[in-house]
Amino acid sequence: MELARPSRKTNGKGVQVEDTQICVVMVGLPARGKSLIAQKAQRYLRWLSIDARVFNVGNYRRKDAAQPSADFFDVNNLEGERMRRAAAEAAVTDMLKWFKDGGIIAILDATNSTKKRRRWIKERCDKEGVETLFVESKCDDEELIMSNILEVKTTSPDYVGQDPEEAAQDFRNRIRNYEKVYETIDEEESDLTYLKIMNVGKRVIINAIQDYLQSRVVYYLMNLHIKQRSIWLSRHGESMWNVYGKIGGDAKLSERGEAYARKLPDLVKESFDGNDHPLTVWTSTLQRTIATAQHLPQEWNQLQWKALDELDSGVCDNMTYAEIKEEYPEDFEARDQDKYNYRYRGGESYRDVVIRLEPIIMELERSENILIVTHQAILRCIYAYFMNEDQEKSPWLNVPLHTLIKLTPRAYGTDRQVYKAAIPAVSTWRGKGSVAKHEDPLEDTTSLDK
Amino acid sequence: MELARPSRKTNGKGVQVEDTQICVVMVGLPARGKSLIAQKAQRYLRWLSIDARVFNVGNYRRKDAAQPSADFFDVNNLEGERMRRAAAEAAVTDMLKWFKDGGIIAILDATNSTKKRRRWIKERCDKEGVETLFVESKCDDEELIMSNILEVKTTSPDYVGQDPEEAAQDFRNRIRNYEKVYETIDEEESDLTYLKIMNVGKRVIINAIQDYLQSRVVYYLMNLHIKQRSIWLSRHGESMWNVYGKIGGDAKLSERGEAYARKLPDLVKESFDGNDHPLTVWTSTLQRTIATAQHLPQEWNQLQWKALDELDSGVCDNMTYAEIKEEYPEDFEARDQDKYNYRYRGGESYRDVVIRLEPIIMELERSENILIVTHQAILRCIYAYFMNEDQEKSPWLNVPLHTLIKLTPRAYGTDRQVYKAAIPAVSTWRGKGSVAKHEDPLEDTTSLDK
Repeated sequence: MELARPSRKTNGKGVQVEDTQICVVMVGLPARGKSLIAQKAQRYLRWLSIDARVFNVGNYRRKDAAQPSADFFDVNNLEGERMRRAAAEAAVTDMLKWFKDGGIIAILDATNSTKKRRRWIKERCDKEGVETLFVESKCDDEELIMSNILEVKTTSPDYVGQDPEEAAQDFRNRIRNYEKVYETIDEEESDLTYLKIMNVGKRVIINAIQDYLQSRVVYYLMNLHIKQRSIWLSRHGESMWNVYGKIGGDAKLSERGEAYARKLPDLVKESFDGNDHPLTVWTSTLQRTIATAQHLPQEWNQLQWKALDELDSGVCDNMTYAEIKEEYPEDFEARDQDKYNYRYRGGESYRDVVIRLEPIIMELERSENILIVTHQAILRCIYAYFMNEDQEKSPWLNVPLHTLIKLTPRAYGTDRQVYKAAIPAVSTWRGKGSVAKHEDPLEDTTSLDK
Repeated sequence: MELARPSRKTNGKGVQVEDTQICVVMVGLPARGKSLIAQKAQRYLRWLSIDARVFNVGNYRRKDAAQPSADFFDVNNLEGERMRRAAAEAAVTDMLKWFKDGGIIAILDATNSTKKRRRWIKERCDKEGVETLFVESKCDDEELIMSNILEVKTTSPDYVGQDPEEAAQDFRNRIRNYEKVYETIDEEESDLTYLKIMNVGKRVIINAIQDYLQSRVVYYLMNLHIKQRSIWLSRHGESMWNVYGKIGGDAKLSERGEAYARKLPDLVKESFDGNDHPLTVWTSTLQRTIATAQHLPQEWNQLQWKALDELDSGVCDNMTYAEIKEEYPEDFEARDQDKYNYRYRGGESYRDVVIRLEPIIMELERSENILIVTHQAILRCIYAYFMNEDQEKSPWLNVPLHTLIKLTPRAYGTDRQVYKAAIPAVSTWRGKGSVAKHEDPLEDTTSLDK
């Protein structure tokens, strides 16, 4: 499904910004993680409501040459060279058209391995008033490159249905052909705005950043790492307010919620697949999340973040949905119409929550294994970031109580595993228009426990 | 006055963090802006409640050699060399003692110009479990260096009372002595965590950042620039709630408030000192700031930031202080006891406001001339950042209505100019314990219009 297009005039804070448009130009040999970086940047920016789109030159090239062999990428293969240039031309033309229609940040995913090619892209963008930010991924860590090659040969459409060994060999030959002409970004190009990432963030060089939006993209990219790790998500155990069908507040756990807290250490252990490792535990500052984390191993670090507190329901805090509908019928209606953007009187919207979660996402990107015990709306937003969920849908996800979710980011997407505690709890999911205290999710609801 | 010491266990979000302690080691020839960077970093971190302190080796050296000539800094001057090493030793010893007492981020301000010296500092810190982050300021822009030299010879205690021309010449000789032994951070030191800033942020290299706190310091430092610019601050014009003595809300301007909005363009023009330049205008999303900015030149960009909205007074929104005291006597009392940390029920504290203002400060650091029309508490927090105001005091500052404040950051501090509109308005300042709707500030109140 096509993602709903985020609105133009926003800087991720829901406010108008100056008319900056940026073309992020990836630079690097094959198997340097360019596409991974491009996809992550797109996902992050869209999560912040910044209209972003990857233009992958390989996809354009494949229209004419679906499964070319390494020879195709030899500089002496004139026909191959012509077709690759045509693909770049087509991608850039589409991209500039997309900017004319109001796009904010395009990511041009290709090797862009020569100074000439980079200059050409800059000139095309300059002419349209689009800024360029070159992002070069360099890597001399052989192990990293090999694991990328392995990933590519098993996932690239260029090698579908081919013998894996032959594919890997062909891909190494392709890289060798690129190496012949590859020019790293250097002093001669010091007029370019660029970010050079060496060995996935071990070292970065940043040149001539011009404005705030560029600096945000750069800050995000420089915080990425690719160490294997997982993120565990859980809501607090069932609270008394859950039982009463009230929202917000700072209630204690119910008895069943306490039982979940006692069970959580085992549930986490079950998720370890044999590899025991200490986790860092993040909770909100509200007592129901702190109580839920209390039986986890003492030697695990625990942090409390106010940024993980539940969505602030303002004047509706501590009310049931029936009371809200009774007292604020227009608000009740408006929220169901546009749950993502609706801001409670004196409180927050999902959009507001995403903005306050941004430092959390940034720290998650920097971190390794983290267990987060938080609240329904917060978990929905964090989940939406990792799983690329649509903003229209994420506020309606069913996140059951007493369930542990383990997310493991991979090169192309995020794996999800679910561990259920088998301790009953009320449902806190609510359908559009409903004022029921507890109801079962509809058939077509996306549930995070399935 | 000594600043109140911010608490140990905080990451600027008011939550516990892991026990990271960082020594930021400045590296660079004289007149490269090291002390400026060190002072700014200290101010920023303290504003975020992170305990930070600059240790300036020159101050230790001056105890024994108050006004040395350039010869003192010649590597062949053994006595000078010995004294400079003793000063470094004393500063590092004091610093490590400070860390033992719970300090979070020390900034060691000295040239630290040789690899040997840097290695020595790293080993001393390693032994105490303190991380090191080397920050090298390199500069080959002669104009920039000369303006720094000019600044130094007029402000450095080394040259107090000396002939300016002679001082400048001596200082250039001192730099030449340092240049003889200066070693830039290079490949041989790739095990160090470092940030290399070339020509004040035009280009930066970041190596081996290890954790979140380091990444925040680096992000701040890489956003600094030293172009000459000013920041204009104004509250909205008098609102109806100001007149009624109510807090919060989203009221319209009073007639006098409207008059201030009409007057504001002239007031800004008056502050230009002849140099006319377009400003970018930031307001909050509340109607009283937007209305106040409405008569400013059409061609100036205007942005609305939710982050500039007034401190959220939660359940007390739209109430007078008398009503608050009546309805929530304990809260009224608690707030006066510790106004910086008191969080309104369902609302915010000054500490919370500082955290949401951080992106604003970051963008201000990146920007040039900005006019901010905002609210009393927000203005107090922004002012506290630029003027290094104590957190205990900043919530009690008197910020009169109908007054334009122009702040101009200089190398050592921030200049303040005040322009009064001569349009009467109520006072919204409130003394401890008072429930008056309008009262005059006490004699000893710090007023931003004086």
